[in-house]
Amino acid sequence: MKFSVHRAAFIQYLNDVQRAISAKTALEILSGIKLDLSEDGLTMTGSNSDISIETVISIADEQAALNIERTGSVVLPARFFNEIVKKLPAETMTLEVNERFQAAITSGSADFTINGVDPEAYPHLPEIDSREQLTLSGDILKQVINQTVIAASKQETRPILTGIHLAFKEGELLAVATDSHRLSQRKLQLTGKNEADHDIIVPAQSMNELAKMIGEESEDIEIQIAENQILFILGNTSFYSRLLEGNYPDTTRLIPQTATTTLEVNAPEFLRAIERASLLSHEGRNNVVKLTLANGQATLSSNSPEIGNVEEELTFTELKGDDLEISFNPDYMKDALRSFGQSEVLLSFTLPLRPFTLVPSEANGDFVQLITPVRTI
Amino acid sequence: MKFSVHRAAFIQYLNDVQRAISAKTALEILSGIKLDLSEDGLTMTGSNSDISIETVISIADEQAALNIERTGSVVLPARFFNEIVKKLPAETMTLEVNERFQAAITSGSADFTINGVDPEAYPHLPEIDSREQLTLSGDILKQVINQTVIAASKQETRPILTGIHLAFKEGELLAVATDSHRLSQRKLQLTGKNEADHDIIVPAQSMNELAKMIGEESEDIEIQIAENQILFILGNTSFYSRLLEGNYPDTTRLIPQTATTTLEVNAPEFLRAIERASLLSHEGRNNVVKLTLANGQATLSSNSPEIGNVEEELTFTELKGDDLEISFNPDYMKDALRSFGQSEVLLSFTLPLRPFTLVPSEANGDFVQLITPVRTI
Repeated sequence: MKFSVHRAAFIQYLNDVQRAISAKTALEILSGIKLDLSEDGLTMTGSNSDISIETVISIADEQAALNIERTGSVVLPARFFNEIVKKLPAETMTLEVNERFQAAITSGSADFTINGVDPEAYPHLPEIDSREQLTLSGDILKQVINQTVIAASKQETRPILTGIHLAFKEGELLAVATDSHRLSQRKLQLTGKNEADHDIIVPAQSMNELAKMIGEESEDIEIQIAENQILFILGNTSFYSRLLEGNYPDTTRLIPQTATTTLEVNAPEFLRAIERASLLSHEGRNNVVKLTLANGQATLSSNSPEIGNVEEELTFTELKGDDLEISFNPDYMKDALRSFGQSEVLLSFTLPLRPFTLVPSEANGDFVQLITPVRTI
Repeated sequence: MKFSVHRAAFIQYLNDVQRAISAKTALEILSGIKLDLSEDGLTMTGSNSDISIETVISIADEQAALNIERTGSVVLPARFFNEIVKKLPAETMTLEVNERFQAAITSGSADFTINGVDPEAYPHLPEIDSREQLTLSGDILKQVINQTVIAASKQETRPILTGIHLAFKEGELLAVATDSHRLSQRKLQLTGKNEADHDIIVPAQSMNELAKMIGEESEDIEIQIAENQILFILGNTSFYSRLLEGNYPDTTRLIPQTATTTLEVNAPEFLRAIERASLLSHEGRNNVVKLTLANGQATLSSNSPEIGNVEEELTFTELKGDDLEISFNPDYMKDALRSFGQSEVLLSFTLPLRPFTLVPSEANGDFVQLITPVRTI
């Protein structure tokens, strides 16, 4: 194979594929990047045990200015190839691979020769049958991911909880994540043809990587689902993730429908107060802060006999209902508040040891965060 | 003690003192910051086994707007205090310490109480007798440090080489650092009264921290030297460092005075070529690149049978003298080249296994970097 390409454009494509490639891999060949040059363009593939990314540089891409001299395929050491490409001196680079899979990379007066391997040994991407039409706008999908992924478990003790539960049904998508201490749920009306009926669990890590690939310009993303794989198609790039096997716990009845106390606050202001209180709770043995709602006042406090204590009277928009004292992990609260951006948030409480919820004040029931309190003496 | 202060200005002072405070310290009290409030201002002190920093917020500092209600002293947990101050909600903060050394920090509606300790237990700063007048402009001192510190050893096998050798003599300062593979030397004519006669070794780490404290506005820095301490006075801030004990090796005869081959290059251009070549040398077993000067051409190359090879023809300003092939550690070359900034650099060689030098092309003998080549087969 032999081609030349504009380096800056090539690096963009390379960065996307690189996301799927991990230095630590059980399968040696997966530390490499696969290049496949046909008459129509250059296909690059990266993969790890969870995700695979394939991107195509078309000969029609004027920015890339791909010039194909001889088609062929190779697998090159990904990290090293990436570093070389980024440091080359000239605007254009040429890559030529011989029959022993040695790749000569030239740019300006610099000549690199690196040893590649036979692409025959590279695993095939899963084949997904695409009868269904399921499309989401990029910015909506990114929002759904960012709102839910925070509540997914980071621990492998219950692997199913490291995923995001996606239920497509009756023209609606319900996305839920929980680590059993907190839960995040987002509902979404699907547009277009709405026949999709799927109940799947996607690793949160995969969704995180996908969210990073969705750019500012919100193009539509096509979704295809197979038995153990999900495929997201973003323009020239295909993003595959494996699905988690097993049954996701029933979370529908966890969210309380009534409240005896409600507090409405500005999310970023409340976040800063929580950050201050958590400075102290992080130093102490128990990472807990206490919210006291009494006499028309809202007070945040944390206390550790060895270290000291902190108390802050909060400003709020509205406080209604019964007096209440409730303790919680401030880190869960921080994650939850950040997901609301600049908006006003309504906190709804029942009893000191029952989960409480956060929803945007302009609530339409589409997005809810739930936090389980901590028992204190 | 009790005072109020403008938080933004206070944070600036706090950042300076914080440099001397390490979380890991054998002496528990040194993880704290000492505050000492007199009628004239607030003195803050931080210290570790190598350096001590003392800074004074004067009541005359309008930006700090220090308002003293009651004098006194305390030692507070430094990292925690620092984090609290940075996150406080209002422009101003008040600190009040009671007789049990509990400090109440208030700002806006936030109230922190943290446990401090008795300042009596805090070690005293060294006393330095100041008869001499030795002054350097801040930007010159910063330059001298940055030019030499790169060659100091990072390994404790020969502790003396972890320092920078400073010889003040006959109106001149000679600063030298070497890790025995490379050496950096900077000469400086001293201005003003030039009676200083000192031969000292300052830990390179201390000099690095000092360089970071020297701001853009180059104020004069006063230097005072005692038997085992050096003190730099930067405005309101005193920076103390211990000195290394022992005799520094005689480095004067290491620098070759003649050359059989010289190469003049642009420092940043040559640096980028070295960076490319080192991508390959870093992957291989020996971290070595080869420079070939022959037939009026300069070629950089690196080769590793398992990984591949790289070759690049260099652009240069001038090449003179005998043909030569020389191999070296590219990381030493990178550090050396970075110290020359954007300038042209003259490389002078004698034999393939003898040290070679780099000096600015507009040479006046004041600054020289020396690198020992690597023997290759």
